[in-house]
Amino acid sequence: MHTVAIPRKKHYLALCGGVGGAKLALGLSHVLAPEQLTIVVNTGDDFDHLGLPISPDIDTVTYTLAGLVQPTQGWGRDSESFNALDTVERLGGETWFRLGDKDIGLHLMRRMMLDEGLSLGAVTAHIACRLGIAHRIAPMTNGKVRTMVQTAEGLMAFQQYFVKERCAPVITGIQYLGAADAPASPALMEALADPDLAGVFICPSNPYLSIDPILALSGVRQKLVATPAPVIAVAPIVRGAAIKGPTAKIMRELSVEPSAAAVACHYKDFLDGYIVDTADAPTVSVPRVAACDIVMKSLDDKIALARRCLAFSDELA
Amino acid sequence: MHTVAIPRKKHYLALCGGVGGAKLALGLSHVLAPEQLTIVVNTGDDFDHLGLPISPDIDTVTYTLAGLVQPTQGWGRDSESFNALDTVERLGGETWFRLGDKDIGLHLMRRMMLDEGLSLGAVTAHIACRLGIAHRIAPMTNGKVRTMVQTAEGLMAFQQYFVKERCAPVITGIQYLGAADAPASPALMEALADPDLAGVFICPSNPYLSIDPILALSGVRQKLVATPAPVIAVAPIVRGAAIKGPTAKIMRELSVEPSAAAVACHYKDFLDGYIVDTADAPTVSVPRVAACDIVMKSLDDKIALARRCLAFSDELA
Repeated sequence: MHTVAIPRKKHYLALCGGVGGAKLALGLSHVLAPEQLTIVVNTGDDFDHLGLPISPDIDTVTYTLAGLVQPTQGWGRDSESFNALDTVERLGGETWFRLGDKDIGLHLMRRMMLDEGLSLGAVTAHIACRLGIAHRIAPMTNGKVRTMVQTAEGLMAFQQYFVKERCAPVITGIQYLGAADAPASPALMEALADPDLAGVFICPSNPYLSIDPILALSGVRQKLVATPAPVIAVAPIVRGAAIKGPTAKIMRELSVEPSAAAVACHYKDFLDGYIVDTADAPTVSVPRVAACDIVMKSLDDKIALARRCLAFSDELA
Repeated sequence: MHTVAIPRKKHYLALCGGVGGAKLALGLSHVLAPEQLTIVVNTGDDFDHLGLPISPDIDTVTYTLAGLVQPTQGWGRDSESFNALDTVERLGGETWFRLGDKDIGLHLMRRMMLDEGLSLGAVTAHIACRLGIAHRIAPMTNGKVRTMVQTAEGLMAFQQYFVKERCAPVITGIQYLGAADAPASPALMEALADPDLAGVFICPSNPYLSIDPILALSGVRQKLVATPAPVIAVAPIVRGAAIKGPTAKIMRELSVEPSAAAVACHYKDFLDGYIVDTADAPTVSVPRVAACDIVMKSLDDKIALARRCLAFSDELA
């Protein structure tokens, strides 16, 4: 009689924000089994609006993995209607945050479940499951962290800056209110403590608005520094421009050159590998760099980049 | 120099429930100036659903007077969509109460205004104003009254009985929880105390489910008995059948013959006049009866019945 060693499966952790991060998360979900991947999502953008608890990044990731996302903008529901918001407008309510009807249905359910005492993590898992998502999507914390933007016009809540003011105000600083006291979510803690953790992927999300809130949670940055698993970031900047959103603008305003190299520097204390666009490879001085086309347009692009992340983590292991 | 006596305008109070009552309220709004009419609406059917505060009868009256009601069913919004509810269903939520998207927009606004500390009366007035309604629509109370139905299957909240169970359970009794402690709304109190009150109209609504909750509020029934203004009811029953809804069924279950005469008897302590269908006139023994066609199909029907109410109140004054 002899025993056969059953190889335990490698586990991967992806940290992400909204649209850009969701693309890589989708790619990863196509190449990893559900039990191999934990997607931890920024909740610093969360806010209450029209009495509903909105988790923009979680919803973007959820809709993307469920195949329900509006395909051209990359967030919100497909074939959405805005009849509730039309009524809100008619009754004098706020309409700058464009909540669609299908989306409101989800927020109503989230409100009820939170009011029943479920954690945001449990609510997120329930919604993902009902929408047919097998992979684990989790908030960065079940606590409350609010990203606040310091601007020449004063301190603004994130959504006010991002949606209402369309990122126009000049940023002079960013705060993650509550981050020091908010415990990382069980999913994030478990993934970081998993002996089979084989890679941590920092998705191509805004470093300041999407990733830093996660890193600001007590102990998370230190655990990324300490983990034996390779930590790999995918650059959110290509040839000095953000693939999407205000990343480059914010970097300039914070007196940081908007470049893939500068983002690597931002993550330098824990970064083991960096995946950048081929054009940017000569500019970065991270020990280990992988260069490829990192702009994800098609599903094939997303899957290819996910495979590149996995291969790179194998190389760095 | 001489003074000219300016005749003060007569004021009228209408008490109503949902669809049937809203029809007469609409007629009255066409023949009375805004400052002449107060429409006080049952709130015993109000309930919280999907985390939203629903006031079915207030909304039916509001949508009807705003010209926004779904015309064939007489409640809910016209050209409604149900995309939020589709999401709720997909996420495992309750869908037996068919909340449409436009309707949800109103409930979201009501939730926010109530959470800000506004009374239901203030919220109702704000919504009516924004929807272009000049006449005063007010809840029967700013407090909480809940109509509960005693059935063979146990005590049920009204909407469970009315919508979820489709009025199928046999009613053995009805309770208006909280009515004894809920103060009548300022609008109702002011109208009843108005020296220019020239008529009170009990709209053709379900006596047990729509009017009795109003009458159960502390002091209201006594004030109707005491008011010098004529109190006139319009029969909700024609030839032994309810014009709409479960009125006849409920009367039979409560061992009351479903007839226009029985409804008059139900109101006998304060009723000064009764408007019944011509066919039913010989059966009722109220001192003063006016007979006409009381089934309101067209807007002209509603206006004609409203005029009949006003003329009758003049006769009885």
